[in-house]
Amino acid sequence: MRLLGTLNKFGKLLNYSLARNFPKRSMACSRFEYVKSFEQDDSILPNVWIVIRIDGKKFHKFSKTHDFEKPNDENALNVMNAAATAVMQEFRDIVLAYGQSDEYSFVFRKETVAFKRRSAKLLTYVTSLFSSSYVMQWAKWMNLPLAYAPCFDGRVVLYPSEQNLKDYLSWRQADVHVNNLYNTAFWKLVLEKGLTNQQAEAKLRGTFSADKNELLFQEFGINYNNLPAMYRKGTILLRKRVILGEKSRQAVVPLHEDLISSQFWKEHTEILGKYVPGTYNAPQTLPRLVEMQLNGKELDDEAEEPQNLAGTS
Amino acid sequence: MRLLGTLNKFGKLLNYSLARNFPKRSMACSRFEYVKSFEQDDSILPNVWIVIRIDGKKFHKFSKTHDFEKPNDENALNVMNAAATAVMQEFRDIVLAYGQSDEYSFVFRKETVAFKRRSAKLLTYVTSLFSSSYVMQWAKWMNLPLAYAPCFDGRVVLYPSEQNLKDYLSWRQADVHVNNLYNTAFWKLVLEKGLTNQQAEAKLRGTFSADKNELLFQEFGINYNNLPAMYRKGTILLRKRVILGEKSRQAVVPLHEDLISSQFWKEHTEILGKYVPGTYNAPQTLPRLVEMQLNGKELDDEAEEPQNLAGTS
Amino acid sequence: MRLLGTLNKFGKLLNYSLARNFPKRSMACSRFEYVKSFEQDDSILPNVWIVIRIDGKKFHKFSKTHDFEKPNDENALNVMNAAATAVMQEFRDIVLAYGQSDEYSFVFRKETVAFKRRSAKLLTYVTSLFSSSYVMQWAKWMNLPLAYAPCFDGRVVLYPSEQNLKDYLSWRQADVHVNNLYNTAFWKLVLEKGLTNQQAEAKLRGTFSADKNELLFQEFGINYNNLPAMYRKGTILLRKRVILGEKSRQAVVPLHEDLISSQFWKEHTEILGKYVPGTYNAPQTLPRLVEMQLNGKELDDEAEEPQNLAGTS
Amino acid sequence: MRLLGTLNKFGKLLNYSLARNFPKRSMACSRFEYVKSFEQDDSILPNVWIVIRIDGKKFHKFSKTHDFEKPNDENALNVMNAAATAVMQEFRDIVLAYGQSDEYSFVFRKETVAFKRRSAKLLTYVTSLFSSSYVMQWAKWMNLPLAYAPCFDGRVVLYPSEQNLKDYLSWRQADVHVNNLYNTAFWKLVLEKGLTNQQAEAKLRGTFSADKNELLFQEFGINYNNLPAMYRKGTILLRKRVILGEKSRQAVVPLHEDLISSQFWKEHTEILGKYVPGTYNAPQTLPRLVEMQLNGKELDDEAEEPQNLAGTS
Repeated sequence: MRLLGTLNKFGKLLNYSLARNFPKRSMACSRFEYVKSFEQDDSILPNVWIVIRIDGKKFHKFSKTHDFEKPNDENALNVMNAAATAVMQEFRDIVLAYGQSDEYSFVFRKETVAFKRRSAKLLTYVTSLFSSSYVMQWAKWMNLPLAYAPCFDGRVVLYPSEQNLKDYLSWRQADVHVNNLYNTAFWKLVLEKGLTNQQAEAKLRGTFSADKNELLFQEFGINYNNLPAMYRKGTILLRKRVILGEKSRQAVVPLHEDLISSQFWKEHTEILGKYVPGTYNAPQTLPRLVEMQLNGKELDDEAEEPQNLAGTS
Repeated sequence: MRLLGTLNKFGKLLNYSLARNFPKRSMACSRFEYVKSFEQDDSILPNVWIVIRIDGKKFHKFSKTHDFEKPNDENALNVMNAAATAVMQEFRDIVLAYGQSDEYSFVFRKETVAFKRRSAKLLTYVTSLFSSSYVMQWAKWMNLPLAYAPCFDGRVVLYPSEQNLKDYLSWRQADVHVNNLYNTAFWKLVLEKGLTNQQAEAKLRGTFSADKNELLFQEFGINYNNLPAMYRKGTILLRKRVILGEKSRQAVVPLHEDLISSQFWKEHTEILGKYVPGTYNAPQTLPRLVEMQLNGKELDDEAEEPQNLAGTS
Repeated sequence: MRLLGTLNKFGKLLNYSLARNFPKRSMACSRFEYVKSFEQDDSILPNVWIVIRIDGKKFHKFSKTHDFEKPNDENALNVMNAAATAVMQEFRDIVLAYGQSDEYSFVFRKETVAFKRRSAKLLTYVTSLFSSSYVMQWAKWMNLPLAYAPCFDGRVVLYPSEQNLKDYLSWRQADVHVNNLYNTAFWKLVLEKGLTNQQAEAKLRGTFSADKNELLFQEFGINYNNLPAMYRKGTILLRKRVILGEKSRQAVVPLHEDLISSQFWKEHTEILGKYVPGTYNAPQTLPRLVEMQLNGKELDDEAEEPQNLAGTS
Repeated sequence: MRLLGTLNKFGKLLNYSLARNFPKRSMACSRFEYVKSFEQDDSILPNVWIVIRIDGKKFHKFSKTHDFEKPNDENALNVMNAAATAVMQEFRDIVLAYGQSDEYSFVFRKETVAFKRRSAKLLTYVTSLFSSSYVMQWAKWMNLPLAYAPCFDGRVVLYPSEQNLKDYLSWRQADVHVNNLYNTAFWKLVLEKGLTNQQAEAKLRGTFSADKNELLFQEFGINYNNLPAMYRKGTILLRKRVILGEKSRQAVVPLHEDLISSQFWKEHTEILGKYVPGTYNAPQTLPRLVEMQLNGKELDDEAEEPQNLAGTS
């Protein structure tokens, strides 16, 4: 029962016929070109947080082949961190990345229109660049050469509210806690007490966190909370202004904080808010990950760019 | 108005309560675990051909940075071919791959249940392994070191019928023909006649294939059809049995044939049919791509495996 | 690495700016109109059979409220058939409909471009028209007035191959066989032998088809195969030419044949083939469903129309 | 690199084998049952507002056939309102419905798990019940009998934030304002001044709201703002407690308020908040739509039910 709309339709028709009459350079393809119409639109709903999580394929075997230290290999984790940093440098609408073990999550700000929010584009660009960067970074951190090409899967998950997004990241950080506490106890039993894998598993079966903390303390003199934060909390990558004497530069910096606490979100308001990078509270010595950026040519270029509001990446 | 189904429902309830009562190792994650329910099912419709096409991101710039020969760089194309070969070796349900320029298409047999046909899994595994393999292969073919990590996007396209699939591949091969003929003429004009890019473009504007063929012949003494088939036809990768004296071994082999013709499909019945590799009609000297496989340790292992019917990869 | 495509992009830009500059009749809506962009494309993959199945919501209760005869109510089934006929008359790209119990499946020819193959459009038009027609038809077949508005759910299922489609329809017809044999035996035991529902269920538990056939024959003198075909086979609706003396007219006709057999598909080639209606082998007296169409004004109009090749409905 | 998960997988296997060994009543269907696997999951993302908008198919013709009064037919609008009321009575997770012209939007609360949030289920139940109810309600409001079955399409649109949802509804209400002002002026010119449709359209072309208001006032003595609110604002349906002397009862009530203003959302906090119906500020005489519910048997039953928090409907 609409009377309006006619003009609009006319506008469309006009566009359509213009598009049709436009000279194409070649007619050679035309018989087959219909197959392009089988491609389906996969644009993501506006106004939701887009999370892309990548995950190593068969990294259990991969870590064995490459002799990763157990339960955590600092350098191997830094290859992951460096690859993720490369992804964040390329896609400016990623406001946070979170990594642990063989997985990394990338959070695009919810207003992003990068690649028209096409799901497969966003998903594959991130996964591809992460994969190729992982190989590129390998030799900078590891002694053994890469025996074969690593492979990662990726998925897109959408979160409508800030609470959902925080809970997602908390879920991943709670996961690293549970896994790392178990793995730390497991490998101590295997590597230092000489238990078989089966014996270690049997000993830990049914135990609670408190039990494992106690075991580490009693049997190995280890206070779990004193272990490196990267192992216990994973790595949060944020875009920050790094103060260098008189100057400041923007870089992707690694944090190993507790993001389940509300404190984290109060300190790093740029994640949910205006996306204007805060200042980096650097430790005494800059992490190598940051140093590499400050020395790299890329950063110099980027320092002049507007701060990740560009949208289309 | 169904009377049946009650038993089935009871079965489901039973399963459900079993699942609920099953002891979980940790309750720590539970508050956040609901976020997992935001992941959405993306299983692909059964009984359709699954094509995954990857495409280089900003490869115009990439080819300049790395000094690719114009209009075709044989070695750069072989890095693509080698990366695609690695993908086919890993995912046995890929029955054909087709590459040209900075793109590659992978065809999964339509019955595949690899990764439960989950779209994002298939898409990202292929894109990721291609990307990391590209970096791994680079130094084997190129002189210049990689200046930065390459990046590829990927997409999934579904084709219900054999004709659709053939037309898809024909579309890509027609595309290489049109592009390569143009590029060959363009670069001859620029590199040998000293025209500027604008002048060359102006000269070729509005010309038909026949015109460009003529121009190449008249002005440069080139018979386009004698140029290397890889440049004119792209590269088709198939799994074939390679005869080596008394023995035979399975390998991924590169062909540069006309797949638009029906002849191609008659000769390589394994693509659409029973998926049992045919015999490779090798040229006098084995392509390096094949040789590398025959010398590699991986092939020896795979030679014993059942022929790509495994399904779950 | 594409040199082509520039012109095309220019064409798009031109269209875009035309569309933007086009005078809109009203600016009043503009602040809110962005919400339209949240609608997502749901076009169906080309070249697959589109099946829409509708199913009564809580029809067990509905059949009780309206005193349906047990195990089959001929008139109630005909309300379903008449509603489905209305749907087929409206949407000419439906080549076959199949109904049984409180469900109906509609098969769109696989080339249809009706409503641009938008899934929700096709789904809701069919479901809506079926629902409103069911109410419109009710009084023509039933004595009791409708106590409340009936409700149907609908779903879209896609089948890539002819075999898949045949198997889908066979699945539904096998379902009516199993259900109807059971229900026939069940209600005979309840209505004629005075068993309670529980007793009848217990008696039939674990029995095979042969057992139930035997029970019907031994205890009730019923040869199951002599029961009305509509109850045993469901109803197939096809578009046919009905011969009326010298003239012929097109109508939707009900068949109660075995569609699992290959014979059915040989006889009704119009379903999978050229979509040109065959001739109706009418029983001695035309079914009322057909008669109503021949008397109705609508048919006269449609008789002049081209035969369901129109596509866009 | 996960060590956890084994137990969980074992649990799944256990479930799986239980499910497989469970006796099925009939094996007859099994050969065809694989076709069920072609149905695809369409669950809606959690935590977003689900809006279902239905829209009359070819209602321009429908309104002509049934002689609707121009520019607004109060009774025809009430058939729409009555059908929408029936939908809201059935699906308790709909917190608001908004109707104008031949369209109606239904808003499900964002936490709803009705029908497991399956998109097609929600969409078709609403569209089907609306369609059948429209036919059922027709004779209660209209004099002419229904000439043919009406048909509505439906679509699902998702809104992540409250602001998005409010803007959606504002968009629809702004639409009714623009359309109704135009239509009112148009039909006055045609029906009272004797202009042809073309003449009326020409006269109104390019005019602004203020112009049309002025025209109505100057030429017809009409103050647009005094026209019935239902025509100017559309109809908002909310669940409210209706005070009847000492008692109160829950009913779906029609409002014709300005929902673009913040005032509306402050007054009806139950929409976005706790979903506990507020109190109905009834006009002196109850609208017939409400009266029909209070007299109906259904309401009495529902009055005892918990207030739409049940979720699964």
